[in-house]
Amino acid sequence: MNPDFTYIVFLMPELDLVRVLAELLVILLSAKLFGELAERLGQPAVLGELIGGVVLGTGIFTFFHLHDPTLALMSEIGVILLLFETGIHSDLGQLLKAGPTASAVAAIGVVVPFVLGWGLMIALGRDGMEAVFIGAALTATSVGITARVLSDMGKLQLPEAQIVLGAAVIDDVLGIIILSAIQGIAASGSLQWSGVIKTVLMSAGFLAAALWLGPRLADGLVKIVHRMRVRGVLVGAALCFAFAMALAARALGTAMIVGAFTAGILLARTDKKEDIDETLRPVVDVFAPVFFVMVGAKVNLSMFNPSTAENRAVLALSALLIVAAVAGKIVSALAVREKGLNRWAVGFGMIPRGEVGLIFAQVGLAAGVVAPPLYAAVVAMVIVTTFIAPPLLKKSLS
Amino acid sequence: MNPDFTYIVFLMPELDLVRVLAELLVILLSAKLFGELAERLGQPAVLGELIGGVVLGTGIFTFFHLHDPTLALMSEIGVILLLFETGIHSDLGQLLKAGPTASAVAAIGVVVPFVLGWGLMIALGRDGMEAVFIGAALTATSVGITARVLSDMGKLQLPEAQIVLGAAVIDDVLGIIILSAIQGIAASGSLQWSGVIKTVLMSAGFLAAALWLGPRLADGLVKIVHRMRVRGVLVGAALCFAFAMALAARALGTAMIVGAFTAGILLARTDKKEDIDETLRPVVDVFAPVFFVMVGAKVNLSMFNPSTAENRAVLALSALLIVAAVAGKIVSALAVREKGLNRWAVGFGMIPRGEVGLIFAQVGLAAGVVAPPLYAAVVAMVIVTTFIAPPLLKKSLS
Repeated sequence: MNPDFTYIVFLMPELDLVRVLAELLVILLSAKLFGELAERLGQPAVLGELIGGVVLGTGIFTFFHLHDPTLALMSEIGVILLLFETGIHSDLGQLLKAGPTASAVAAIGVVVPFVLGWGLMIALGRDGMEAVFIGAALTATSVGITARVLSDMGKLQLPEAQIVLGAAVIDDVLGIIILSAIQGIAASGSLQWSGVIKTVLMSAGFLAAALWLGPRLADGLVKIVHRMRVRGVLVGAALCFAFAMALAARALGTAMIVGAFTAGILLARTDKKEDIDETLRPVVDVFAPVFFVMVGAKVNLSMFNPSTAENRAVLALSALLIVAAVAGKIVSALAVREKGLNRWAVGFGMIPRGEVGLIFAQVGLAAGVVAPPLYAAVVAMVIVTTFIAPPLLKKSLS
Repeated sequence: MNPDFTYIVFLMPELDLVRVLAELLVILLSAKLFGELAERLGQPAVLGELIGGVVLGTGIFTFFHLHDPTLALMSEIGVILLLFETGIHSDLGQLLKAGPTASAVAAIGVVVPFVLGWGLMIALGRDGMEAVFIGAALTATSVGITARVLSDMGKLQLPEAQIVLGAAVIDDVLGIIILSAIQGIAASGSLQWSGVIKTVLMSAGFLAAALWLGPRLADGLVKIVHRMRVRGVLVGAALCFAFAMALAARALGTAMIVGAFTAGILLARTDKKEDIDETLRPVVDVFAPVFFVMVGAKVNLSMFNPSTAENRAVLALSALLIVAAVAGKIVSALAVREKGLNRWAVGFGMIPRGEVGLIFAQVGLAAGVVAPPLYAAVVAMVIVTTFIAPPLLKKSLS
């Protein structure tokens, strides 16, 4: 006897389903309308999606529920699929060729913003531990925004694009290492080398395993798909591969998007590349806007209102952090001496901090090391760097 | 200050995301593997997906969480998208031509199973009210299974297919009317005519409004889409239209899938039909299997174990219900006198009760009118009719 064999799609008052459908409807509508508006104004569509999200976040639709767990999961699946698609459009040869430059950009782009943020805090007379957390919050690069702009412009094959993507992926791995370091600091007050070394080894292990086993897995998968004839097998197999690689990356302690990106790179080398790309596109078009609109929707505009003294202090702090964040990444790109390279595009592509920077600040906030106004300044820095990168990147590439 | 501007995709232990990705991975894998196996054995892929779900439901993957709300919502979105796609593949002219026959099949297919179920209960000496609920539980037709089989076989254009789809959609509207009637009976012990009449008028209102305003809306939408150039606008606009029509149907008190099906029929008449169909296909391929696998996963095999006296009593009752359910629908098709029509295919297509039949029995169970063993027999009847329809339908059409 199983009273659970029920689907209440049809007749019962399924309020959850109604709410999620209504939310998806306004998310897709605002993504496409504001995306179109942005393109008409010569801006990247993703900037329009972010702004569409800000509009939804003001609460004009009372049914729109910012903390809906289904929307949160769909948005996270969206960024995983976006990085998977970005990997499919990437070229392993070019990426390896860009490797040394990308590594330099990633390393300098972690060290310089850290030193700038740390030094700024010390100069302002803040606590040394707090300075370490703020420095760490400035190091991360969020690859989603940049990948989306490059993909929409059809410029993923440019050397600049491969350098930015390579550097951003390396930054994600470095970010996990830095996180494990500062989590140890937050917990025990001092650096725990054993945890950091474990994280380094496991990340290296994932990448080594992916590059060694991956091509065989990808070829095997494509061979099986060639023999199957059931409907939707290609998109199903591609998603399974992406999810499996993301989960494998996570199991080995590295970022899921690094796994998804690697899955894309591996499938890009198979003879099904074009077919996979084509069948995946509408799925990405449904999930990815959920991510960008939700990022925009979580912006609280009232923090930018300068009428309270508290907000003014936060805004002044955040202005300093923004300068440090932008300058630190642009310096990392300008430090590269490669002939004919559009170094400004590389620098602009590294600007968005997205969510990653916030996580560092949140760990510090939760540990009582980072003061709330400083945390708010980090939030403002993340918002501004996320919103200014798309137009700067597009301008520098066109 | 907004501590909610966070995305923890990258680094934090996001167990929810990990679990949902793992679940989607095994759902897509089992859907495609068992679907392929079913096709190799000459059976419809959807039967394989159902059986793949049964395998997952046995608990071989401990992380697989049958009641995951995200999976439940994705599966419900899946059936909405499936009916939307079915509508796109339908032809309004053919559907209207099939209208009289479909109405006859729907009406006879509601009356005969009701009378058989009711009479059976009375013959077994059960309570009159209980007999009404069991009769009602035998009336519903679940359109998802049949639509999927016809779509996979590429037979949606056949007159038989249009009759089954038309009859199933009419059955959904009738189902809502019957539900409002038996809910009134459950609450007050007698039929409440005012509620029933309100439901009838609102369902008729939705269909009239959809057929009057709908073509203009669809044409307007396509005109706007023609002028837009942002990526993914076609799939976004199509989904927005489907979701909006589903919500409008729901707001007017009829079934969401009726709204989604109507949205598809309306878009099928525009010059973007082929493009929409193509771009929608991978999205349906991702969401629809979640529905069928989850239906299978909710089957509790232990209820079919005849080793306990309780189960044997339930199984005997369910055998009688299955005969009544199958015979009632086949009679409705055989009663039609149309030359050259494959009436067996129409009858087999009407067999699946899916979830709709269960809702009636659940209302009765919750009201204390239907006894638990009888409810269990209805569950078994729903499972068996869901699983036998795909092979019978496929056989009758090939």
